[in-house]
Amino acid sequence: MKNRIHNFNAGPAALPLPVLEEIQAELLDFKGSGMSIMEVSHRSKWFDDVINETVERINRLMGLGDDFQVLFLQGGASTQFALVPMNLLPEGQSADYVNTGTWSTKAIKEAQAMGKTVNVAASSEDRNFCYIPKDIPLDPNAAYVHITSNNTIKGTAYTDFPDAGNVPLIADMSSDIMSRPMDASKFGLIYAGAQKNLGPAGVCVVIIRKDMLERVPESLPSMFKYTTFAGKNSMYNTPPCFAIYTVGLVVKWIEETIGGLEKMEARNRKKADTLYSIFDSSDFYSGTADKDSRSMMNVTFRLPSEDLEKAFVAQALENGLGGLKGHRSVGGCRASIYNPTSQEGVEALVDFMKEFEKKNG
Amino acid sequence: MKNRIHNFNAGPAALPLPVLEEIQAELLDFKGSGMSIMEVSHRSKWFDDVINETVERINRLMGLGDDFQVLFLQGGASTQFALVPMNLLPEGQSADYVNTGTWSTKAIKEAQAMGKTVNVAASSEDRNFCYIPKDIPLDPNAAYVHITSNNTIKGTAYTDFPDAGNVPLIADMSSDIMSRPMDASKFGLIYAGAQKNLGPAGVCVVIIRKDMLERVPESLPSMFKYTTFAGKNSMYNTPPCFAIYTVGLVVKWIEETIGGLEKMEARNRKKADTLYSIFDSSDFYSGTADKDSRSMMNVTFRLPSEDLEKAFVAQALENGLGGLKGHRSVGGCRASIYNPTSQEGVEALVDFMKEFEKKNG
Repeated sequence: MKNRIHNFNAGPAALPLPVLEEIQAELLDFKGSGMSIMEVSHRSKWFDDVINETVERINRLMGLGDDFQVLFLQGGASTQFALVPMNLLPEGQSADYVNTGTWSTKAIKEAQAMGKTVNVAASSEDRNFCYIPKDIPLDPNAAYVHITSNNTIKGTAYTDFPDAGNVPLIADMSSDIMSRPMDASKFGLIYAGAQKNLGPAGVCVVIIRKDMLERVPESLPSMFKYTTFAGKNSMYNTPPCFAIYTVGLVVKWIEETIGGLEKMEARNRKKADTLYSIFDSSDFYSGTADKDSRSMMNVTFRLPSEDLEKAFVAQALENGLGGLKGHRSVGGCRASIYNPTSQEGVEALVDFMKEFEKKNG
Repeated sequence: MKNRIHNFNAGPAALPLPVLEEIQAELLDFKGSGMSIMEVSHRSKWFDDVINETVERINRLMGLGDDFQVLFLQGGASTQFALVPMNLLPEGQSADYVNTGTWSTKAIKEAQAMGKTVNVAASSEDRNFCYIPKDIPLDPNAAYVHITSNNTIKGTAYTDFPDAGNVPLIADMSSDIMSRPMDASKFGLIYAGAQKNLGPAGVCVVIIRKDMLERVPESLPSMFKYTTFAGKNSMYNTPPCFAIYTVGLVVKWIEETIGGLEKMEARNRKKADTLYSIFDSSDFYSGTADKDSRSMMNVTFRLPSEDLEKAFVAQALENGLGGLKGHRSVGGCRASIYNPTSQEGVEALVDFMKEFEKKNG
């Protein structure tokens, strides 16, 4: 479609064009209701179908058994940094956290600030978070092990998740959820702000193993308890209906148009390989992540100078390639190539990168 | 526009048609960005303009001085039930709460559940919350006085707010914010889930007097502190961009199309008078709220029997009049006539009510 750019934003990020077109087409009259999806009651059959179908698709795509429940919360992953220890780390126990970057660090800080006992089991801070630690010594008595599966800012990701034995893994998967198949059975809880792989900002998908709900202290405020959401199909109060509806369309697109998570991974792998290959054949662009820790979602790189990086980002945008500036905390460049981004967009980016190197290298 | 019904939902509720049409028109390319508003970064100039213009319009419409700050939070009013006492009710102090219905009761329960000292200064529970208490004995040493300005379920509203002297008023205005001009200077904090008068579900507007921020305990999790949002223009983490954008369009509609809150009130008053007049001339329909406590937003009423109520709601929908069922906790009928609903819609409802009475009365 004309006027649309190739969007490499880190989040909020690109959405599949067919999803946007479907939203647009039914915005004034949702399924013959005579109302927008934003105007129907969350207690109506219309919205019930939306939320239930979305949950069922997530269950199918991720192969979740009856022992899991899919919830929709608000407040982003940052709110989960507090809710996870509040709900799941009982007084007198400690939790293992693996520190792989900005978001892990924040998760650790929030848990510590509320007086919880946190054990940083491993950290890659010694080399500016450019790798994922291996052979992590985990406490077999920990309440849980918290990881950040993909690190948006540093461009790293786990290939294999730590083996925590019987201790439940908890993962912030905001930036790689449903980018590939994944064995959910290792996890006690998975959370993901939707605005990267799954939809718009404004809803956080929480996938909880039901036995974890037994840990939730009765004394917490209602809106801070996972049990409140689990007991009411995420509708104790009015949920973020439009955001959930859009997530529903994105997972429909993953299931019906792409064909599931194996095909999603193949598509994502090809995009990442296309983009990373340029670092292996050029001295002009250098990837910032260790090769064996490279993220399939966020490709972070530097150019020979900050001036060149600035020119690169600006000229790319002129060429219809947007969102390539690195996170304000680290600088450099970053191409986020989440589920909705296309191979065509990545190839356009690689072509531009080659041209830019030719002119400035 | 054909296919659209007259929507009397209690929330999520009707939106102005021009707002929906504007969203639809720019959904694939927001202001020449080549991206949807859902796809632009919250750190971009595009979104900065959206959030800043929305704040400025709210400031202008409500006549807020520099001593106030407008924030956008997630989790609805139900989350504010916890955040208000967590942030603003210090250990060793008590707060006055006025109980005027379901939502007030929940606000009181959440504060009490976290061990805060709550004084229920007045309640209308003795007559099933069909009125607003008057001459409320308030504690001059209270940390704040909490009220629910409009009671969606019971159809009551304050005409005049309690005079709390130097004690700041805190109000849940979810269902009547910006329905009329109002002197904000009495308030320490106002909060409102947007999904009734201001926009879609998924964002809660919080208007805080800046001196209240001094009470916020440092020890709270970042996402539960008003100071976190105040210090970052509501963008400590990714905000619910699309919901804020839609609120921006609704307040633009109130300011530019309607012409401000005095005109909004005149329009709302006329709709309410049109609808209430039927109760004063009919024994078939009986309003449930005391006359001097009637809400201008939620008109609650009963028919002679539950069977007739059921038939009324069903036949109304067949006639293009939706959302007339009372809240599941109280039954009966309810027409919510928030800002976006039209005089034309109310007149169509009144005509239908007269017809229905003729056939069934």
